[in-house]
Amino acid sequence: MNEIFILTFSCQDRPGLVAAVAGLLFQQGGNILDAQQFTDQETKRFFMRVVFEMENTERLPHEVEILAKMHGMTWRLRPTAQKQRVLLLVSKYDHCLADLLYRTGIGELNMQVVGVVSNHPRDVLNHSISADIPFYYLPVTKDTKPQQEARIKQIVESSGAELVILARYMQILSDDLATYLTGRCINIHHSFLPGFKGAKPYHQAHERGVKIIGATAHYVTSDLDEGPIIVQDIEHISHSDTPDDLVRKGRNIESRVLARAVYYHLEERVLTNGNKTVVFLD
Amino acid sequence: MNEIFILTFSCQDRPGLVAAVAGLLFQQGGNILDAQQFTDQETKRFFMRVVFEMENTERLPHEVEILAKMHGMTWRLRPTAQKQRVLLLVSKYDHCLADLLYRTGIGELNMQVVGVVSNHPRDVLNHSISADIPFYYLPVTKDTKPQQEARIKQIVESSGAELVILARYMQILSDDLATYLTGRCINIHHSFLPGFKGAKPYHQAHERGVKIIGATAHYVTSDLDEGPIIVQDIEHISHSDTPDDLVRKGRNIESRVLARAVYYHLEERVLTNGNKTVVFLD
Amino acid sequence: MNEIFILTFSCQDRPGLVAAVAGLLFQQGGNILDAQQFTDQETKRFFMRVVFEMENTERLPHEVEILAKMHGMTWRLRPTAQKQRVLLLVSKYDHCLADLLYRTGIGELNMQVVGVVSNHPRDVLNHSISADIPFYYLPVTKDTKPQQEARIKQIVESSGAELVILARYMQILSDDLATYLTGRCINIHHSFLPGFKGAKPYHQAHERGVKIIGATAHYVTSDLDEGPIIVQDIEHISHSDTPDDLVRKGRNIESRVLARAVYYHLEERVLTNGNKTVVFLD
Amino acid sequence: MNEIFILTFSCQDRPGLVAAVAGLLFQQGGNILDAQQFTDQETKRFFMRVVFEMENTERLPHEVEILAKMHGMTWRLRPTAQKQRVLLLVSKYDHCLADLLYRTGIGELNMQVVGVVSNHPRDVLNHSISADIPFYYLPVTKDTKPQQEARIKQIVESSGAELVILARYMQILSDDLATYLTGRCINIHHSFLPGFKGAKPYHQAHERGVKIIGATAHYVTSDLDEGPIIVQDIEHISHSDTPDDLVRKGRNIESRVLARAVYYHLEERVLTNGNKTVVFLD
Repeated sequence: MNEIFILTFSCQDRPGLVAAVAGLLFQQGGNILDAQQFTDQETKRFFMRVVFEMENTERLPHEVEILAKMHGMTWRLRPTAQKQRVLLLVSKYDHCLADLLYRTGIGELNMQVVGVVSNHPRDVLNHSISADIPFYYLPVTKDTKPQQEARIKQIVESSGAELVILARYMQILSDDLATYLTGRCINIHHSFLPGFKGAKPYHQAHERGVKIIGATAHYVTSDLDEGPIIVQDIEHISHSDTPDDLVRKGRNIESRVLARAVYYHLEERVLTNGNKTVVFLD
Repeated sequence: MNEIFILTFSCQDRPGLVAAVAGLLFQQGGNILDAQQFTDQETKRFFMRVVFEMENTERLPHEVEILAKMHGMTWRLRPTAQKQRVLLLVSKYDHCLADLLYRTGIGELNMQVVGVVSNHPRDVLNHSISADIPFYYLPVTKDTKPQQEARIKQIVESSGAELVILARYMQILSDDLATYLTGRCINIHHSFLPGFKGAKPYHQAHERGVKIIGATAHYVTSDLDEGPIIVQDIEHISHSDTPDDLVRKGRNIESRVLARAVYYHLEERVLTNGNKTVVFLD
Repeated sequence: MNEIFILTFSCQDRPGLVAAVAGLLFQQGGNILDAQQFTDQETKRFFMRVVFEMENTERLPHEVEILAKMHGMTWRLRPTAQKQRVLLLVSKYDHCLADLLYRTGIGELNMQVVGVVSNHPRDVLNHSISADIPFYYLPVTKDTKPQQEARIKQIVESSGAELVILARYMQILSDDLATYLTGRCINIHHSFLPGFKGAKPYHQAHERGVKIIGATAHYVTSDLDEGPIIVQDIEHISHSDTPDDLVRKGRNIESRVLARAVYYHLEERVLTNGNKTVVFLD
Repeated sequence: MNEIFILTFSCQDRPGLVAAVAGLLFQQGGNILDAQQFTDQETKRFFMRVVFEMENTERLPHEVEILAKMHGMTWRLRPTAQKQRVLLLVSKYDHCLADLLYRTGIGELNMQVVGVVSNHPRDVLNHSISADIPFYYLPVTKDTKPQQEARIKQIVESSGAELVILARYMQILSDDLATYLTGRCINIHHSFLPGFKGAKPYHQAHERGVKIIGATAHYVTSDLDEGPIIVQDIEHISHSDTPDDLVRKGRNIESRVLARAVYYHLEERVLTNGNKTVVFLD
């Protein structure tokens, strides 16, 4: 029976890349179901995502490896049947968490939640997390931050988490942890970055009198609120919206934007390009 | 110096199509700048759009022809340097016309307007059409419709128009003219079809009390308001909007939707798929 | 201490209505916090929503009654401190249910869920409903529909439900039940009505090749999919979206649109105007 | 015959304001067609917009004056029949100018264009400005800026302009001119402020890799890009958009946002509230 794979790669642009990849897959008996590509005209870097089905995949990784070496490709190959292992971090506001868990439960997000970490105890959350998901209550103070983050690293390692999601986790990661998680950690910031960086963006928005609020899902880097942006969206607001109204309206945007970014990430639709992303939309 | 071409084609899906096309272009010295593809899983029809640059293009059409025959492809090859010749039809409301002419003037739309046809005299229009665009005043009544439409056909032929745009042309085309223009005529309908077909859609919308209005750009077929949809968009409205308000708010949507559809068509981003379209977005 | 009230009313338009209402509230010691009004210029019917705070409210209902009689007003007066009692009906797809329960739990929706009715057993649902909410499993066949609906009526009566929400309840209500619930029952339909009425709207949308899908929250009437529309919203889709993709993308719109309609209803922002609604937005 | 008026005012909040205004208009024989109000809960300032029709308006300004004095109101009373006199400033990019002139021509914007000022000669513009609108070519250099701005002031004075619109006028106004025009000058900035202040916002947006671009219409103050925001809107973009694509997509947003802000201003829907605005939407 046929398996479906997603191959993503990037390398310096040169003529013949599409022909080379399409040729290889054809020779191996594959059938391309979807393919998207992009060349960054400034850096001349080439990005591609290919979805294909194939019966006998024994030789595939080896052949891709050879091609990748020839063209200096950074690449990833993933069978769609394999769920990614994901660790969720949350503080008090758990609307994003509840939303991600529901979407996972109905099969919309192709992932397995290997744990939930919170700096608040379980009963502070509104959403009741199913008993079969390990819950880690890791309180944190300025003084205990190194130990708490060491514990998070341990959990990442022991759970085999491939992706960490900061689902309104309101602690600033240390440079060390941010670096450790680079490329595999998605955060949701409650503003349309680069507007309103830092703390209390809804209050900043109210103060400034803007007519839209937004949310930004981005990969975490050691540079706070400056990581590669994956998805952004907004809602219109009015003069009559209090900061509390913004918080309420913002919840919808945050949940939606984070879920979309996670969906794209799990579908291997996001490739980083320096401090930007290439997102091959469906 | 390199020329840039857009090749679009569709055919029955089979393994190796991407490899074949990419291989051909590589052999001819081409470099693929952008490529998008789609397979309709219901009909197993394959659609592709490839943008490439090439120096020596003498043999290109011949080689594409051979490949196309082999795979039963319907195809089109167009150098981007060549502007499409476009005929605009309009009645009294000329906001779409003014918008298209402005966008053409600043080079946003890669087209040459070869004429404007209206069933109203020139001075009924608000927009003053530049003197170097031929204007045809072709009034029409029930009785003179066959003659008027024959005249339109003549103008299409003599002007070499490749595309006809019904920019709020409020006459229903006869089956004969609609069939004649199939695949090369875009209409803007002022509702989110299939809601509110036929006449006075804003009044229908007001009557029904909907909370959104919209516009639909579609290819004209002999089946009124049923042709393949290219672009749709909407605006939110409220209980306090009168039919006049809807007309006012609707103008923005109509101009925007039509301009986008024309832009996509001119960029060879739209392929018809039965009564649907494949639109490769930028 | 001050209580906050919402007064809504409608009547035939005449000069002095705003002055009369504002005067009455001023005399009773009230302070208007928000007021919105609308006159339907076709029917000359006047609609108003006034939010005010007042300390001594003993005489208020009596005074409003007198004024209402004088002007032939249909009116409602509700203290914001009082939660509305709401009954939820659901079938297999429970994303709207999960969303409404979460929003209720965090206090966003000013309501108390007095029960959940489903024609499917509890364990078919993905969301685990909290044990303190009565769950009624009421299977239904063509033959048992009268009895099943009688049971629903009973539950409405016994639970004191003021509002019934069809949160993707996929059974068509009988004329009798629809009439019984008129004005106090909100349904979510998964299309931008009047496009794609009836069953399987996403499949209809796919078939037609539209570029947007939507959802419509409306009051239930005995005329299927024709009741007064409260909220509509849409998402853009593309040729590559399968019916399953539409179902996935549609879930977001359905949850969002229904939650907004319920929010507006609970805040007394929705007044019916024949087969339309007046919705005083926040 | 009845005239229609718009009365707007703001003052410190206190009980009875709505009753007082509604009472006054009723006594003078007026009929309220629309009324909207807002109280800023932080500053306790009250804002109101009332539209009414009245036959005999001789005593009206006097009576409003008395009321206004009593309550310390800042107020404005304007008959809707009277068009506002507007001066347009533009540089090279004239899409906003063309859009505003078209909307004025068809009667959508209730204004009279008393002149167009540009720092570029007329033939640099794409749009051909009708001969009956005075065109002022006022080139400017660092050295001649004071004189050029003095000339602009003169034109404002002599033309009786009530509103000045910076329709992509790419010169930074001096503090002196900005202060002179405070409250009666609208600018369009091509970003969703406060993101990307200053020059070349589309290039900044491309550099940062955001997924949305936007535009902001705001009143001009001496604090660059910091004036009260009237309207904002956005478009989604992707990794494949070059800065040129952003400029193209941005034109649509800029035209739309500026037109809407001007429309609201002309309809007296915008009241300033410190460095914010109250915008009573239609």
